[in-house]
Amino acid sequence: MSQTRISSGVTRRQFIQSGVALAVPGSFGALAAAGLGGFSVRSLAAEEAKTKPLPEYVNWKDAEDLIVHSANTIETKRSAFGTSVITPAEDLYIRNNVPPPDESIVADRDAWPLDVEGVRKPRSLTVAELKSMGLETVAMVLQCSGNGRGFFPHKPSGTQWTVGAAGCVLWSGVPVRTVVAALGGPAQGARFMTGTGADKPPEGVELKEALVERSVPIKEVEQALLAWEMNGEPISLAHGGPLRLIVPGYTGVNNVKYIKRLALTPKETDAKIQETRYRMTPLGQKGNPSQPSVWAMSAKSWINHPSGEGESIPAGLTQIHGVAFGGINGAKRVEVSLDGGKTWKEAKFFGPDMGRYAWRQFVFPAKLQAGKHVLASRVTDSQGNVQREKRVENEPGYNNTSWRDHAVEVTVS
Amino acid sequence: MSQTRISSGVTRRQFIQSGVALAVPGSFGALAAAGLGGFSVRSLAAEEAKTKPLPEYVNWKDAEDLIVHSANTIETKRSAFGTSVITPAEDLYIRNNVPPPDESIVADRDAWPLDVEGVRKPRSLTVAELKSMGLETVAMVLQCSGNGRGFFPHKPSGTQWTVGAAGCVLWSGVPVRTVVAALGGPAQGARFMTGTGADKPPEGVELKEALVERSVPIKEVEQALLAWEMNGEPISLAHGGPLRLIVPGYTGVNNVKYIKRLALTPKETDAKIQETRYRMTPLGQKGNPSQPSVWAMSAKSWINHPSGEGESIPAGLTQIHGVAFGGINGAKRVEVSLDGGKTWKEAKFFGPDMGRYAWRQFVFPAKLQAGKHVLASRVTDSQGNVQREKRVENEPGYNNTSWRDHAVEVTVS
Repeated sequence: MSQTRISSGVTRRQFIQSGVALAVPGSFGALAAAGLGGFSVRSLAAEEAKTKPLPEYVNWKDAEDLIVHSANTIETKRSAFGTSVITPAEDLYIRNNVPPPDESIVADRDAWPLDVEGVRKPRSLTVAELKSMGLETVAMVLQCSGNGRGFFPHKPSGTQWTVGAAGCVLWSGVPVRTVVAALGGPAQGARFMTGTGADKPPEGVELKEALVERSVPIKEVEQALLAWEMNGEPISLAHGGPLRLIVPGYTGVNNVKYIKRLALTPKETDAKIQETRYRMTPLGQKGNPSQPSVWAMSAKSWINHPSGEGESIPAGLTQIHGVAFGGINGAKRVEVSLDGGKTWKEAKFFGPDMGRYAWRQFVFPAKLQAGKHVLASRVTDSQGNVQREKRVENEPGYNNTSWRDHAVEVTVS
Repeated sequence: MSQTRISSGVTRRQFIQSGVALAVPGSFGALAAAGLGGFSVRSLAAEEAKTKPLPEYVNWKDAEDLIVHSANTIETKRSAFGTSVITPAEDLYIRNNVPPPDESIVADRDAWPLDVEGVRKPRSLTVAELKSMGLETVAMVLQCSGNGRGFFPHKPSGTQWTVGAAGCVLWSGVPVRTVVAALGGPAQGARFMTGTGADKPPEGVELKEALVERSVPIKEVEQALLAWEMNGEPISLAHGGPLRLIVPGYTGVNNVKYIKRLALTPKETDAKIQETRYRMTPLGQKGNPSQPSVWAMSAKSWINHPSGEGESIPAGLTQIHGVAFGGINGAKRVEVSLDGGKTWKEAKFFGPDMGRYAWRQFVFPAKLQAGKHVLASRVTDSQGNVQREKRVENEPGYNNTSWRDHAVEVTVS
C-alpha cells in the first residue's frame, strides 16, 4: 500500500496502523474525503468483499450472512434478513467512524462512567447507578445514514451499502428523561442533546476531525435511552457497549456508541462529524452547517425474498416478503408491485407489531410465471407519508429511501 | 461409569454411546424412571453443574449464562434473562428426550420432507414447498413441562430445573391450518394433531418407549406453525431444525423438533411420551392415559432481578424486574410483593407487547433497606386467572407455577 499523503499530515498507513487493520479503507475513505480532503478510495464490489474474513472484534458474527466491506463496515446480505422481526446480533451490520475502543472497556460494565452535563445538577453516573434509576425497552430500526448509497448514480465516496446497513433490534436501558429529571432538569438555554463517544481517534488526526460527538434536537430526550442491553444481552463492544445512546427513529450515527458524556447544550457540537459531515449536502458541494443534518429517518421498505441475489425461484406460488418502517413514525400500510412500479397491490403485515420505531414484516403471496420480474415495495407511514419513488440527490449519498432503487430483479425458471 | 443394567436390557453405557456423550444422565434418568423402570439418577446441584462444559452440538451457546445439567438438559441462569423481551438463541434452554439427530439433517434444509397424514389428500411436502405456501410469525414462551421441578419437596426424578427451562422466542413458518386446507382439510374423525420427531432412539430401546410423538387437541391446528426460523435465523439443530412444530401456549414437549410427520388422528398416539409420561400423575402413582396430559401452560411469572444468585444489592432504589405470561392466554397485570407475599402492589409492564403467547417484562422500582427480603411476583391473565400460590402436586413435577416457589430471597447491604 502506498504512503498516500492526506492533508492533515497523516498517512493512510498510519490510519491503518492506528487500531484495527483495515483491509479496505472504505470508512476512513469517507472520513478523509469529507473531512480531511482529497483522499478517496472506492470500496470493493460486494462480490469481492464477500470473501473477506470477519475482523477479530466481530469474529462471533455469522460470516455467511454478511458482506465485509472493511474492518469497520460490514453489511447484512439481503437474503439473510429473516422473517421474525428481530435482527440477531450475529447478523447486524457494523459501521464505525473510527476503530472501536479497546475490549477492556467492557470488562467491568457496571463501572463505566457517564458524565452528564447541561443539567442543573451535573454529575458523573456509573452504569450501575443508571441501572438503579429506571428501565425501559424499545424495538427500533437501526440504520446507517448511508444505507442505500450504492444506488446513487454519482457514486458517492464511502461504503457502497445496498439494503444491509440496517436491522431491527431491541434496546434496554434507562430513559434519558429520567436521568435528566433526577439531575434537576435541563440547564437554561439547552436546545440540543449532545452525546460523546469514547472512540479512539486515529493518531495524528486533529480531535475535532475524528471526535464522534453528535447533537440532536432536545425534544428527543423524551424518547431516548441510555442502553446497556441489546436483544437480551449486554451490548457488545462492536455495537457500542457498555453504554449506548439510543435515539429512536434517528439514523445510526446519532446513536452514539460507548457514550462517555451526555450534555444538554445550547448549540450543536462543532465536531466535524456534525458540522460538515452527515449533512444533506447538494451534489458537487462541500458540507456546511447550513445544510440539514442527517437525523430522523423517513418511510422506507424493501423486499428481502426473492432477494435477486441469484436464488432459484420456481414458477408458481411465492411468498414475497420484506420489511417496512416509517422511521420517526410507525408504518401503516405497504404495497407491492410485480411490474416495476406500474401497478400496486396491498401486502399484509405479519408477526408482532413491536411499536412505532420498529419495522414490520410484510408478505405478498404471488404466482410468478417463468421469466424476469421487477418486484418493488412501497410503505406509507402513520402520518400518510408515502415512500419516495426517487432518492433525494445529495453528495455524500445519505437517506436513500427510493422504492425504485430498492426494487429487485428476479429470474423465475 | 458402571454398567448399570436397566430393565429393557440396555445399559447406561449403551445410552451414552448411542449419540451425544452424556456427562450426567439426568434426562435419560427421567426416561428410564418413567418408561424403563427403576433406573433413576439425580441431577447434580446447580453449583456443581455450572462447571460443566457445553456439549459440542451447542458449543455456540453462551456458557456463562447457562447451567449444564447434562448434554441434553441445559438451563438459563435466572440472572442471565435480559430485559428486552426476547431470549437470544445463545441463552435458550435445551431439553431433549433423546439425543438429537445427526447434524447432517440441517445440511439441506429446504429438502427436508414432512409427511402430512390424516388429511383428505395426504402427501409429503418439502420445506421448500412449505415455504411457498404461507408465512406467519409468532412470539411465544417456550417452556419445558418440568420447569420449576427443583422446587417440589418430594424431589421428583428428572432435571431439577428452577426458572431457566424457559425463554421467549420468535418463530416463523407456515400456519398448519394453511397446509391442512391445501391438502383438502382434515380426514373424517380426526380429533388430535399428532407430530412425530426424527429423534434417533437409543439402540436397544423399544420404539414406543423412545419415540418422540405427541398429540394435542385438533383445535390447535388454528394457532400452530410448521416453523423453519427462530429469532431471525434458520432453526438450529439443537432447537429442532430444519422444521419444528410450534403449538403456541403449550409446553415444550408438544413443540415437536425435527418433525418428520404431521398427522390428524382420531386418537392420541400410544407412544410412551404421550401415554404414560407428561401426565399430571398423582404423588406416588404411575402415569396412565386417564390422567391429564401436560398441554397448555398456565399463568406464571418470576423475578429475574434481584436474582437471589448472590449479586451485590446496595440499599436504596432498585429496579426489580422479571417476566410474566399467561400461557395459553395473554398476561393482563402483574403484582410484586416485597414481604414474601403478605402485601402486593401493581408492577408496570414495559417494552413491546409481542402478543398473547409471549411474555411481558415487568418492572417495580423499590427502595430496599439493608437486610434480607423475600420478593415475589404474581401475574393475572386476560381471563382473570391469578397465578397460583401453591404448586399442583404431581409425581413427575410438571407445571409448577407457584409464586411462592418462585420467590427470591435477597440480601441488601
